Amino acid sequence: MTVLILTSEEDVTADMVVAELHGMGTPVLRLDPADLPGKAVLSADYAHGDFDGHLSVNGHVLSMSGLRSVWVRRPGEPAAHAAHPSPWLTAETRQALYGMLHSANARWMNHPRNADQARLKPWQLRVAHLSGFAVPPTVFTTAPRLAREFTEEHRDVVVKSASGPPPDDPSLALPTTLIGPDADFSAVGAGPALLQRYVHKSADIRLTCVGTRLFAARKTAEPGQVDGRYGDTGHTWQPVPVPDRIGKSVHEYVTLAGLAYAAFDFAEDEDGIWWFLECNQGGQFGFVELETGQPIAQTVALWLAQRRADRRGG
Amino acid sequence: MTVLILTSEEDVTADMVVAELHGMGTPVLRLDPADLPGKAVLSADYAHGDFDGHLSVNGHVLSMSGLRSVWVRRPGEPAAHAAHPSPWLTAETRQALYGMLHSANARWMNHPRNADQARLKPWQLRVAHLSGFAVPPTVFTTAPRLAREFTEEHRDVVVKSASGPPPDDPSLALPTTLIGPDADFSAVGAGPALLQRYVHKSADIRLTCVGTRLFAARKTAEPGQVDGRYGDTGHTWQPVPVPDRIGKSVHEYVTLAGLAYAAFDFAEDEDGIWWFLECNQGGQFGFVELETGQPIAQTVALWLAQRRADRRGG
Repeated sequence: MTVLILTSEEDVTADMVVAELHGMGTPVLRLDPADLPGKAVLSADYAHGDFDGHLSVNGHVLSMSGLRSVWVRRPGEPAAHAAHPSPWLTAETRQALYGMLHSANARWMNHPRNADQARLKPWQLRVAHLSGFAVPPTVFTTAPRLAREFTEEHRDVVVKSASGPPPDDPSLALPTTLIGPDADFSAVGAGPALLQRYVHKSADIRLTCVGTRLFAARKTAEPGQVDGRYGDTGHTWQPVPVPDRIGKSVHEYVTLAGLAYAAFDFAEDEDGIWWFLECNQGGQFGFVELETGQPIAQTVALWLAQRRADRRGG
Repeated sequence: MTVLILTSEEDVTADMVVAELHGMGTPVLRLDPADLPGKAVLSADYAHGDFDGHLSVNGHVLSMSGLRSVWVRRPGEPAAHAAHPSPWLTAETRQALYGMLHSANARWMNHPRNADQARLKPWQLRVAHLSGFAVPPTVFTTAPRLAREFTEEHRDVVVKSASGPPPDDPSLALPTTLIGPDADFSAVGAGPALLQRYVHKSADIRLTCVGTRLFAARKTAEPGQVDGRYGDTGHTWQPVPVPDRIGKSVHEYVTLAGLAYAAFDFAEDEDGIWWFLECNQGGQFGFVELETGQPIAQTVALWLAQRRADRRGG
């Protein structure tokens, strides 16, 4: 039984997991959907009430009946590397590839159906509430008056992007920024704003969930530091135990969201409370593993290689 | 309790359902996501473990706690009509709007999570098999040799598009076309081909499923007619009863796929067998209602107005 990894060619994190799978003797096929058609060949047969499909990459052939699991890492756009790429060729290739993979009886990390929903930030906050996490008061609004009222009520407020960097300019940084009630809110009418009560944090927490295994890491914050992703504080990620209450909420969250893998970000305040900031279903883990030594790549590999026992996200 | 309809301004089918809802005294809000932000204002609050949101269109305000159901008809791209549209503004507006709607406790026709998966043609064939439908042998392939072998085996074979017309030129028609084993298959290597055994059909069947209600219609085919969508045969759609076996398979299919609405296309052969061709989760029904008098718009309106009893697709 083979593990299929959908990712682009340069992906150090995938390399870590591939090395673990090789060590375990589990067959792996790695495919960038951008290389289909071309480097990769696909064929899916629907006949006589049955189904079988094959995927061949550089001479390695994977049968859908021998597919154990699919890891959706950083897949390229289908047919992006084709000799004559076009939106239609991409749409047709997506249909053929993902239609075949959805037809197989494989486990997914994460299933695209659940991954798409899990990317919606406002929905994340709702699920976090339902799962029992502490969530800082947040508003998404296109009404300048409501944005001002929210900021007046909560005083220290951050504004951030819900969707991340612009799709047409991914290199543009949009750091989370502290604002006050005297800010100019007129532009809110032109595009939705995400405003959140600022958590006076003593540390950033990254919690990685792989199936039922949890790995938490903590990095001390500089006083007044707003966005932990930018600026070097000299502090490093240290492994920390997962409080029971948090562990229960994490399991509740990934069950509601149907996720096999999730990277949670929390802000730890001065009272030690972990405030839910977001849950990234495709979050990186290489940097945490590097600094903490937590065996995340190995745990991902084990989950992918496992038989269908833990059905979560499968 | 209000019904929200996501669709563009010009949508005669939506007009039919709106008229039915008005007749039933059910409040309706109609929104084209392209008009947000601008004509529409949105605000979603996540505070104190709770959630509430508001959507206001032309002075009509809808609270998320008063949202009964969402009908995803033909929604425009979020922020497409903005003064300064951009991929980033679209991504942020999609987050705000769909994130808020996913957070609400509403019924969906159809839930985006299930709709996306239901669009995958190869997966449709697999689910059709599992639901007990007769499905013509089909192959999706990028291997010219396999395409030729399939055609040699089945002789009368049609080639069609899996994804529909090109996204960048939606007016381009790609009719289903009959081919033989002497066709030139070399281009299959450049883009996946969908080949299917041709059904010698006596009629086209359109079956519309709304919740648990089924409406079947039949249109006699001209001998040798391949694609029922093109060319006028002089025949019209006539209501026909739904065979028991088909009814059971339809319910199985929409349950597996999590759909509240689905339009099935079948080819009826000379023995009266209905061969599954596809299931369009967003298929039109106006033309069938017009010719058959089947009350589909009314049934859609009733489903949308209903309390949470039938949970399917909700």
